[in-house]
Parts: sequence; structure tokens; C-alpha cells
Amino acid sequence: MATGPLVTDEAADPRVRAVFDDIRTTRGSDHVNNFWRALAADPATLERTWEEVKAVMAAPGALDPLTRELLYIAVSATSGCSYCVHSHTAAARAKGMSDAQYGELLAVIGLAAKTNRLAEALQVPVDEAFLR
Amino acid sequence: MATGPLVTDEAADPRVRAVFDDIRTTRGSDHVNNFWRALAADPATLERTWEEVKAVMAAPGALDPLTRELLYIAVSATSGCSYCVHSHTAAARAKGMSDAQYGELLAVIGLAAKTNRLAEALQVPVDEAFLR
Amino acid sequence: MATGPLVTDEAADPRVRAVFDDIRTTRGSDHVNNFWRALAADPATLERTWEEVKAVMAAPGALDPLTRELLYIAVSATSGCSYCVHSHTAAARAKGMSDAQYGELLAVIGLAAKTNRLAEALQVPVDEAFLR
Amino acid sequence: MATGPLVTDEAADPRVRAVFDDIRTTRGSDHVNNFWRALAADPATLERTWEEVKAVMAAPGALDPLTRELLYIAVSATSGCSYCVHSHTAAARAKGMSDAQYGELLAVIGLAAKTNRLAEALQVPVDEAFLR
Amino acid sequence: MATGPLVTDEAADPRVRAVFDDIRTTRGSDHVNNFWRALAADPATLERTWEEVKAVMAAPGALDPLTRELLYIAVSATSGCSYCVHSHTAAARAKGMSDAQYGELLAVIGLAAKTNRLAEALQVPVDEAFLR
Amino acid sequence: MATGPLVTDEAADPRVRAVFDDIRTTRGSDHVNNFWRALAADPATLERTWEEVKAVMAAPGALDPLTRELLYIAVSATSGCSYCVHSHTAAARAKGMSDAQYGELLAVIGLAAKTNRLAEALQVPVDEAFLR
Repeated sequence: MATGPLVTDEAADPRVRAVFDDIRTTRGSDHVNNFWRALAADPATLERTWEEVKAVMAAPGALDPLTRELLYIAVSATSGCSYCVHSHTAAARAKGMSDAQYGELLAVIGLAAKTNRLAEALQVPVDEAFLR
Repeated sequence: MATGPLVTDEAADPRVRAVFDDIRTTRGSDHVNNFWRALAADPATLERTWEEVKAVMAAPGALDPLTRELLYIAVSATSGCSYCVHSHTAAARAKGMSDAQYGELLAVIGLAAKTNRLAEALQVPVDEAFLR
Repeated sequence: MATGPLVTDEAADPRVRAVFDDIRTTRGSDHVNNFWRALAADPATLERTWEEVKAVMAAPGALDPLTRELLYIAVSATSGCSYCVHSHTAAARAKGMSDAQYGELLAVIGLAAKTNRLAEALQVPVDEAFLR
Repeated sequence: MATGPLVTDEAADPRVRAVFDDIRTTRGSDHVNNFWRALAADPATLERTWEEVKAVMAAPGALDPLTRELLYIAVSATSGCSYCVHSHTAAARAKGMSDAQYGELLAVIGLAAKTNRLAEALQVPVDEAFLR
Repeated sequence: MATGPLVTDEAADPRVRAVFDDIRTTRGSDHVNNFWRALAADPATLERTWEEVKAVMAAPGALDPLTRELLYIAVSATSGCSYCVHSHTAAARAKGMSDAQYGELLAVIGLAAKTNRLAEALQVPVDEAFLR
Repeated sequence: MATGPLVTDEAADPRVRAVFDDIRTTRGSDHVNNFWRALAADPATLERTWEEVKAVMAAPGALDPLTRELLYIAVSATSGCSYCVHSHTAAARAKGMSDAQYGELLAVIGLAAKTNRLAEALQVPVDEAFLR
């Protein structure tokens, strides 16, 4: 259960409603997911965050949209955000993530977590060769 | 400075030396970076971790090697491992990461960190639509 | 579900019961929340932690009680503790946190999470000007 | 050392230079700190992040500017960002943080970290009373 | 709910089934817990991880099996993994963890979390005496 | 460099000096390490934290002092505290940690980090069997 209300379309003030409408239009779906309904607690943060999601995740660029979703899953699993893992795994599947890609993503997430902690436990100094 | 010695080739026992040799052969480089020299503190973990790195990062698969490095950077920055960020950013550049790709990687890492924490602060319940 | 029992008043030994009684008296409420009932698994840690909560969160000082609760929420959301986010958001509301304050708290938590990770990804060296 | 260059004024393209100029104007200081010089690796993220910092940290609101800095320190210490701890502790002092306030901030950060982990170790279920 | 299927014995391909069988034989129990059923999403990671668990947690060595479980709980509570806290607390109890040992484990986890964050907030430089 | 001064014996007020003296007496060493000198920024937190360290790390109990240090290292490496990893690895060595024990500690820290993140990525539901 959220710490506050999940704002419905009816309860949304015009500023919030405009974001909800843009989410629907941008995604071509009627579903406005709970993250945005909870974030409506702060309309300014809602607007800014949605604009950032559009710019970072949807705009054409050097990384394809699926790769960006895989990166999002990697960050979310690492910082332990259950909601984010669920929503971005669903998004990655919707963008065509194959079972083989998902398996390799898991393998990298697990390996990196292990070597991250080993490097911390050992306090390994950075090699000169890695510094530009 | 590491919490223990960085094992030199001279000080390496045969088991450790075999891993160092395989690192050199696999990478086609004489450089054995500090992570492996510090991890030689536990030869069993050294062997197992190197085998895993070879299998996960270098074997042919559904994700190309550069994408795996980008994922590694994303995990490492999120868990705050300085050594790992440096080594895998260098590795990604060696595998052809462009400035544009790096910029977009940064953008996703930053955005995901933000929404991860907002979702935690709001304790957003997972949408039914995201559950299979 | 907790990893152990939530100690009831009836099952509490005198040492635990004394802490529960002091929680009730200090807060002017009959509710002893689940954290303390679970922490009763170790009476010494229970006593020490409750004494620390009283000293840090309730004693007069240079930061008002609401500000301390906002800081507690910020830490808890950042380290991803669901229980703590819920309990301290409730506490902040009880101490008068307004919707506007909550919205700004969310904005800072999200922004700081983003720049924290960007600074880690970039491994930015500390400016001389920031060192005393 | 950063993973990339710290962009100097001379090397900055017009888009980056415009952000640097706005940082100087907004802060009334000639110092553009390393975070922004490193983040110039991605001009779009630079622009977006600076706009967000201005909106979240500097605009009038329900939380005073010092409280926002204290929250920033709390998040940064919790996620272990050395750069961010240094820069925001310096900022908090510049905004008038007293020694007594700093001491209490430390006390809350430490206590919250402890109870966060205890709640995780015990997997304490959220009290009904905390759910709205 | 998991992000993918929990693979049943019937749905397991031979490679996955072989791991499940080895888990049963090694543990002398018919129960294959959900972690392995979910990880079957990537048979290679399943095999590698199970082999690592056997080598690290079950092989004779310098740390007794219960101490390894206590360490596992400490890591899992610190990184906030609910599943791992539950499964390894159950494993520690099955290996004979007493209430007194559990209480002291909690005390160390909580104290270390506190001083970790205080050291980060203060950015304490490492004493020469600690460097070899 | 610390965010504030490392309080010298000369600069210590009587309350701080009393803690420094007790550290020396308790440890039978003249060295007061930097953590305490930095934490002297808040005498109340200094006193409380030192009392807690004495009670949790030094008092007789069900876990031997070396095991407690190993747990402290596990927590510190997992939360990425460089200072704490250094100081508690030195402490563990002083208390007799062997190379073999250290190697196994590393192996558990690395494995647990990996399965923690895999369990988060997969959002594995807790088995009924693990719940009491």
C-alpha cells in the first residue's frame, strides 16, 4: 500500500490530468500506472519526471529503447526497487526482450554485484591504465 | 590502498599463476589488473570469479559485448563501486562505446536512480498489469 | 511476515515490558508498533535502540522534531526500508508535515539520488573549494 | 580522477557554456564545481540536471533552503556518494548550518541507518495504523 | 509475485532438472525453494550459482557452516533482500543458531550500519595504522 | 579528507577527552583512530556510539569477538564503506583472522551479493517453508 493516495483521473487537478493525458497519448495505452498516480502527490515532480522519462527513454538516440530498458532493470535490481523491477521488466518484454536476453541480463547483474562487493571488500586501487 | 597485497607474478602460487596466464591469453594483453591481483588472496574465489567473467562477459550470446559492459557500468555506479566503474568504463571504451552512447547511459542511470527512490519513498504498489 | 515472533505484552519478559511501557508513556499512546515487538528478540538491542530514539528524535535541540522525521524518511527511502518509510511518513504527518513539505521532500530525495549516481558514474574528484 | 574530462570553459561548446554561465549567475560565484564539468560529457543531462537543481534547491517553497541541504546530505551519506557529501556539507555550511545542527543531523543519519537494517533483518510487517 | 514463472519439476528441461535433483540430494530434502525455480529462467546462471553455493556454503573450511549463514544474513539485511533474509535466517536456525546468537547478530548488523553511515557522512580518512 | 576537523587530544573538550581516554584504556593502545576524532563533532553521538561499540563488540557473549569482526566486515563491504572495511579488516587480523578465514569471508560476501541481486531481479516470493 502506498504512503499516500493513488490519484484517480477524477481527483486529478488540471496539471496532473495533463500529465496523465500525455502518458496515455505517448504510450498509446489507456493505462496510467500506479507510479504516476502516487507521484501526483507533488505535481511539479510529476511533470518534471515524466518529461525526463520521455526524453531519456523514448527519444531517438545512440542506444536502442530495449537496451535502455535493460539498463533500467539493472539499476533497479541493484538498488532493490521492487516496483521498478516489475514495471521495467514488463516494459522490456513489451519491447521485445527475448528469454535469452533476459537470462544474460540476469547473469551480468549477478556477476557485477559479486565483483562490486569483492572490490569493496579488498579496497582494490584503480590501475593507472584505467585512468585517462 | 588494498586491504592486502596485490599478488605479483613472482609471488603467485601455481594455481594463481594459471589464472593470471589465462587472463593474459584471453584478453590478448599482458596487463593483469589489480582486481585479480588482490583477489588472489583467495585462489578458489579467484578461479571461480574469472571463469564466471569469461562465461558471462566474453561468450557469444544474445547481448553484444558492449551492451554487457554498459550493464556492468550501470550496476557498478548504482552500488557505488569506484574500482568497478573505472575498470568497466575503460572496458566499454575499448569495445567501442561512443560519446553519445555514454551520455545516454548516464541519463538512464540518473533517471532510474531517481524513480527508484521516488517509488520507495511512495511505496507504490505494483500494478496488476505488470504481473504475469 | 517477520523472521521471528512479534512479542506481545503477555509474552514480554520484565526487561522488554519495561521498554514497551516507556514507549507508551513517552508517546502518550497505547500503540507499541511492530518494530519494537520484533526487536524484542534481543532485549539489549531493544533497550539501547529505544534509548537512542528517545535521545535523538525527541529531545529538544537545534533541529525541530519534524525536520528530524523528514531526514529519517530521506534515509529510509534511500536505503530502501519499506517498514521505515511507512512508519516515519506516518510520524511526520502526525507532527504536522504539510502536503507541500512532503512534495518538496520527494523532490529532494529524487534529485539527490540522481546526482549521487551520476557523480559515482563519473567518479568526480572533490573540488579543493569543498575541503576545509 | 574522473572517468572522463572535466570540461574547461575553453573546451565547452555553446550549450555547455550557457549552463556554466547560468550556474555562475545563479550562485553569484565564479566557481563552477567539478560535478558540472564532468557532467558536460552529456549536454542534455547537464542541462536537465541543472534546471532540476535550480527548481528543487533554490526556488521558494515550504522547506527552507538549509533544510533541503540537510536532506541532501542525509541521502548522499546513505547512498555513499563521497563527492556529494563533500559538496552538500560545504553548501549547508554556506547556508548557515550550525555545529549543533550538524551534530543532530549526524545522529539522525546514524540512528536511521541502524533501524533501517534492523527492520530489514527482522522483516517487520507494517502496522495497520501506518497505512492510510 | 516473481517477474517470471517458478519452474516446476514437470516444466524443467533436463539441465534444470539435474540441478533440482542435485539440490535435493545435497540437502537431503525434497524442497527446492523458489529462488532456484525462478533462477531456472537462465539455466547457465542456475548451474553456476548452485555450484558456487555448494562450494562456498557447504564445503569443509576454516569457517563453520553456521558462521557462513550468519555472514549471509548480514549481507542480505544490509543490501535489503527480503527473500534472502528469510531463507538464510531459516537456514541459520536449521544449523543451530541460538536466540542469543541471533540477538548478537542483530546488534552487530545495526551497529555496523550506523557507523558505516557516520563514516560516510564524515568522510573519515583511513588511519595509516590500518594500511599494511 | 574529512568534512570537518579530526579533533586532537589538545582540542578535545572534557566530554570528548573522557571518551578518548576510555578508548585507550579499553583497547590497551594509545591510538585513537580517526573515526572517533571526526565523530567528536557531536559529543553526544560520540559517547553513545562508543558505549554501543563496547557493549556489542567487546562484551562476552554467544558469538566470539572474531566472528563479530567478520560480520562487521561483511556489512561494511556490502554498504561500501571504505573506512570501515579498512578498520575492521585490521581489527579482524589483530584478533587472529587467518588467511583461510579471510578467503572464505570474501567468498560468502561475493556469493551473497550475487544471489541478493538475482533474487531482487527475479522478485522471488518467499517460500511458505521459510515463514514460521
